[in-house]
Amino acid sequence: MEVAPELVQERGKASFPPSTLTQLVDGGVAKMARRRWLRSLILSDPIFNNEDSIYLNHTERYKRALAKCGRLDQLINKYRLNEEDSIVLRSCTSEDLPTLLHDLMFLPCLLSLCSEEQQAYWVPAARSKKVLGCYAQTELGHGSNIQALQTTATFDPATDEFIMDTPTAQAYKWWPGTLGRTANTAMVIARLLLPQESSSSSPASYKDMGIHNFIVPLRDLHTHALLPGVVTRDIGPKIAFAGMDNGCLELHAVRIPRANLAQRFVRVTRQGVWSRVEGTHSKAAYVTMMQVRAIIVVHSARELSKACTIAIRYSAVRRQGFDDSKTGSELQILDYASQQYRLLPLLAASVGFFFCGRAVLTLLAETEDALLKGRKGQAEVGALMGRAHAALAGLKSLCTTIAADGIEECRKCCGGHGYLACSGLPELSGNFLQQCTVEGDNVLLTQQTVGYLLKSYIKWRTGGPVLDEECQYFVTAADGAHAEGLGEGEKGVRDEPAVLSLFSRRAFATLERLALRLQSLTEGEASLSQAGAWRRVLVDVMFVSRSHALYTVLRHFAAGLKSLRDGNDVSGVGKAGADAAFIRVLERLFFLFAFYHLSKEAGDFLELGLLSPETVARVRGEVEILLGEVRPDAVALCDGWDWDDFELKSALGRWDGRYAEALLASAKKEPLNHQDPVDGWDRTWQPQWKVEEQTERARL
Amino acid sequence: MEVAPELVQERGKASFPPSTLTQLVDGGVAKMARRRWLRSLILSDPIFNNEDSIYLNHTERYKRALAKCGRLDQLINKYRLNEEDSIVLRSCTSEDLPTLLHDLMFLPCLLSLCSEEQQAYWVPAARSKKVLGCYAQTELGHGSNIQALQTTATFDPATDEFIMDTPTAQAYKWWPGTLGRTANTAMVIARLLLPQESSSSSPASYKDMGIHNFIVPLRDLHTHALLPGVVTRDIGPKIAFAGMDNGCLELHAVRIPRANLAQRFVRVTRQGVWSRVEGTHSKAAYVTMMQVRAIIVVHSARELSKACTIAIRYSAVRRQGFDDSKTGSELQILDYASQQYRLLPLLAASVGFFFCGRAVLTLLAETEDALLKGRKGQAEVGALMGRAHAALAGLKSLCTTIAADGIEECRKCCGGHGYLACSGLPELSGNFLQQCTVEGDNVLLTQQTVGYLLKSYIKWRTGGPVLDEECQYFVTAADGAHAEGLGEGEKGVRDEPAVLSLFSRRAFATLERLALRLQSLTEGEASLSQAGAWRRVLVDVMFVSRSHALYTVLRHFAAGLKSLRDGNDVSGVGKAGADAAFIRVLERLFFLFAFYHLSKEAGDFLELGLLSPETVARVRGEVEILLGEVRPDAVALCDGWDWDDFELKSALGRWDGRYAEALLASAKKEPLNHQDPVDGWDRTWQPQWKVEEQTERARL
Repeated sequence: MEVAPELVQERGKASFPPSTLTQLVDGGVAKMARRRWLRSLILSDPIFNNEDSIYLNHTERYKRALAKCGRLDQLINKYRLNEEDSIVLRSCTSEDLPTLLHDLMFLPCLLSLCSEEQQAYWVPAARSKKVLGCYAQTELGHGSNIQALQTTATFDPATDEFIMDTPTAQAYKWWPGTLGRTANTAMVIARLLLPQESSSSSPASYKDMGIHNFIVPLRDLHTHALLPGVVTRDIGPKIAFAGMDNGCLELHAVRIPRANLAQRFVRVTRQGVWSRVEGTHSKAAYVTMMQVRAIIVVHSARELSKACTIAIRYSAVRRQGFDDSKTGSELQILDYASQQYRLLPLLAASVGFFFCGRAVLTLLAETEDALLKGRKGQAEVGALMGRAHAALAGLKSLCTTIAADGIEECRKCCGGHGYLACSGLPELSGNFLQQCTVEGDNVLLTQQTVGYLLKSYIKWRTGGPVLDEECQYFVTAADGAHAEGLGEGEKGVRDEPAVLSLFSRRAFATLERLALRLQSLTEGEASLSQAGAWRRVLVDVMFVSRSHALYTVLRHFAAGLKSLRDGNDVSGVGKAGADAAFIRVLERLFFLFAFYHLSKEAGDFLELGLLSPETVARVRGEVEILLGEVRPDAVALCDGWDWDDFELKSALGRWDGRYAEALLASAKKEPLNHQDPVDGWDRTWQPQWKVEEQTERARL
Repeated sequence: MEVAPELVQERGKASFPPSTLTQLVDGGVAKMARRRWLRSLILSDPIFNNEDSIYLNHTERYKRALAKCGRLDQLINKYRLNEEDSIVLRSCTSEDLPTLLHDLMFLPCLLSLCSEEQQAYWVPAARSKKVLGCYAQTELGHGSNIQALQTTATFDPATDEFIMDTPTAQAYKWWPGTLGRTANTAMVIARLLLPQESSSSSPASYKDMGIHNFIVPLRDLHTHALLPGVVTRDIGPKIAFAGMDNGCLELHAVRIPRANLAQRFVRVTRQGVWSRVEGTHSKAAYVTMMQVRAIIVVHSARELSKACTIAIRYSAVRRQGFDDSKTGSELQILDYASQQYRLLPLLAASVGFFFCGRAVLTLLAETEDALLKGRKGQAEVGALMGRAHAALAGLKSLCTTIAADGIEECRKCCGGHGYLACSGLPELSGNFLQQCTVEGDNVLLTQQTVGYLLKSYIKWRTGGPVLDEECQYFVTAADGAHAEGLGEGEKGVRDEPAVLSLFSRRAFATLERLALRLQSLTEGEASLSQAGAWRRVLVDVMFVSRSHALYTVLRHFAAGLKSLRDGNDVSGVGKAGADAAFIRVLERLFFLFAFYHLSKEAGDFLELGLLSPETVARVRGEVEILLGEVRPDAVALCDGWDWDDFELKSALGRWDGRYAEALLASAKKEPLNHQDPVDGWDRTWQPQWKVEEQTERARL
């Protein structure tokens, strides 16, 4: 179909070529070309077709997705794709693949938790998908509090085996993706119970050694039949994520060899004696978790950008209401300030989160490098891990919260049509919502970040060592001399350093307030225990984490802009003089993101005396100006994210803007329309008023 | 199953009997008993069973719902239930009934838009469901901007008929509930085109008389077959609301008699001459719309209370994390301040919205009474309508926004399990989300409210007449003398009049700021047109409407508390001395709701100089204290809303708290579990690594 004239016009007036943004997010021209080639493999293969997926139930969707997994493997083998290419290829399917957790958790866990000897066997088996694994941690009764998990692995010296048990319904593994029907093996997190020496007269007693990891075969590798003592189930329909078989696992006296304890960091001898493996960093076990959180930050940027693409393109072609003149056509709804205010800061967030995600991946790569290659000492690695952990927890929480709310706001911005499955937004939103809960609930995670910040703060306040990059800002923020910097310089309020300084001072001030409060709760009249005081201040903890993470996003955003301006960005963007216009657009997005949040959360800044009411008003005005400036580039920014219609799966967000035709075509496919009147209609209504008609006739 | 000990304990420590709240929300003891009896009819009838509804696709769900409609009618006839009882009975089904729009819109429209002569024919036919109607206004290309609708009704003097047409895909009716497969008749909103006198040589030309209402037969009343020229379709799967056949309607030269123009307010003569009917209030046409908005406010309270019930009961039985002592069982998650902060203000909102809904229904009844009984003059009725319209628009927007976000927050508070369909929250949330868009998009509606407020403000500032109740607060708010009243009196910050005054002054100040801004935009340098200036300030408009509506909720909440304290509440609650404890609980909810929003939106209060930073800090502290005070009554407050497990449809929110057993039972029903291995599994994986195994064997 011909492209809607509105989109032609929007694309014509953009101040930069969208491919510059594509180059940036792909990390360079070569990677961009490679991704597009990989995507073309998916687009041209009918097995990946997703046109009717909104009509499929969980079982149908799962089966389709399973078939896609098989084809993906064939493609990966055929083109001998490396790890990086395979990940890109998988993501281009825009499908919830049942094998996701095999790739995302099981294989990485084998690599990070198993000894080299174990890896020699399991890794090739997993790579060939002979062994299809999942990661079984969460239980029906316990998620975030890992220490309370109830699944047990009891060592039996008689047979040299562990006996795996889920003793109660609460102990059943519950939620692991890939577990329900797909996986034949699980990395199971269980309490290790070792026999204790006991007098011969008393029954055997066991010592609880805490949480360990075990490789547990679930199904016969050939027949895929469940092994004795193993029960798995799919846990049923969810908001979305219908291609995935999130599962439940019962283990009833399932015996596994002693060698199936993941033993990179710990060992159990033939005699049942536990020991730590010398020279290893035990915290390495957390690397996989941190990797997943970093991927989630990147994912937040991408999924939010998809929603923005749909809503902004639709807002450009949807018309409503006349200008004064009442002549000509109706206005584009993107021309309303309220619509801009709802959408454009989200577009800015998606770009900010991109820079942020790139930065945390780099940080994580450094940490991992230090850890796995054993180049640094235990203490140094511990510090790096602690810092990465704190940074990721807060960012995962903030980015997924903003993205989840933002995707839903994009959906609402499409009016009624956003409520239709064919708009693509319900599934996009439904799939993304889980990100707020998985891999650490967003509210619980704030405790991780703030715990770290407080520890660093107290260390520093009591004359401790130099602060790491995560907390570096304490030093300048504590210096109240420049309390009202924003808007005072020549640049007006559009002053990157002043903005960063302001957000850092807010984060610091709320942290300091929390520290004082905790002190007064434990030391003062209240005299609460540490844990009791901590539980009391959890609301403050949420806000401190948010303030810190918001500052962190801005810091990474600004650093990204600087690398572009300096011409040393890894993507190569910024080297060409022609990129200057693009950088100006991103700078506007930086200020839009910052000022949007500043004006929404002005209470903090005012209460803490960091801004005057006059500056807040000025910032609010600046948001309005920025919306007007970003508006002409909005469609180009969406285009720059380079989502194919196949990936958006949306009647509203199509490249050609032909939403009316697309909606209508979609409705025609609805199975309910395939019979008319609907079977059962006559049984429902007919008899009743047939009786009435007869009565009526009799009366006449 | 036995009730979980946590819930037994929670219920034991409540400070009031939950039935007091039930009596309040039902409007008295007699109504409470009546509703419970009606509910028992539904609970005992297997046709209303909804246990497996999460597994049904749209077609299956629709057919089930259709059967429920039939049985409902049988029950209504059998027990000769009146209108009020019928509504209660329908709502007890907790199902999206395909006939909803027949009851909610079609019948009321017949009553409000048709002449008595027309009603004599159509109303009995509709009551008996021989005529099953829907309300067809929204088109594929136009929703909120009714003036731009494209469906036409062209008068043909030759045959004395209107010719109904949807000339383009954009003009197809799109979204009306009940339209797709159920309705045999539609109230169609279309542009009336009347032939104009023209010279005999030129082709016929028509005058566009604007939007009118027409009764259009869609299907044969006996066979339910579509009539010639009519095409209807279901528009496909949605986020939820699967029992409803939201539809699409094409009309191709469909002829209807002239008598089918709804003619309470307008007539077209045999000669094609249009006239207004003398002595009628043309604004009466809006009554149905306002009724629906009022019902939505009530609905916000109820649906939010359902979500709170699920999340709070679950939070009482779900345990996580140990206290310092590490002895005994884990803590209930409801004991964490962060969980309380997320949930309890929503519980408070549900009660506030209840009072608010009750008040607007009363206001609307007065308006309707004045209107339909013709007791007042055109001007007076116009004023009443304007006021009711403004009040309802802002409240519908605020209450559904808070409730929709709140239901989703309740869902997130249930962690991973809230993502499962069997938690009941996805459907509750998914169904409710539409309320933010239907009957006036929540953002667009703010323009209606603020338009009215501005007009009233300007009238009053220029010495106009006494303000109505909606704007009465301008007078005191404009008097800056008591700018910082909160916390100054003996009562501390828990001072109802001071809280109301504060929120009213915030609303007034933001309104006044907006008025000044508009003035400067139209008169100053910018010199924009009225419409241009208005479009520029739409972000401010959103916030002004919100501020006004928030104050209005608090005003109705406080008035409700007063009627309880005074012992003159219609529900009879407050008359017994024993109700004093209950009233104290509601007072805490009032302050919790107010202070929660005050601290979240402190920026406004600080920027406007209405509060000092010290008072904001104090209010924040008070929120924490209130959370602790409300906490022991949280479960009882949920119980008081009196939702049966059947209505909650939730494995997590059950009366007995046995969520683990319920989740497991639900998983066992998932159809994907009925085959293992899943059909197609071998085709996907087997061949690949069979090849590998053969290679391997060859190598050995």
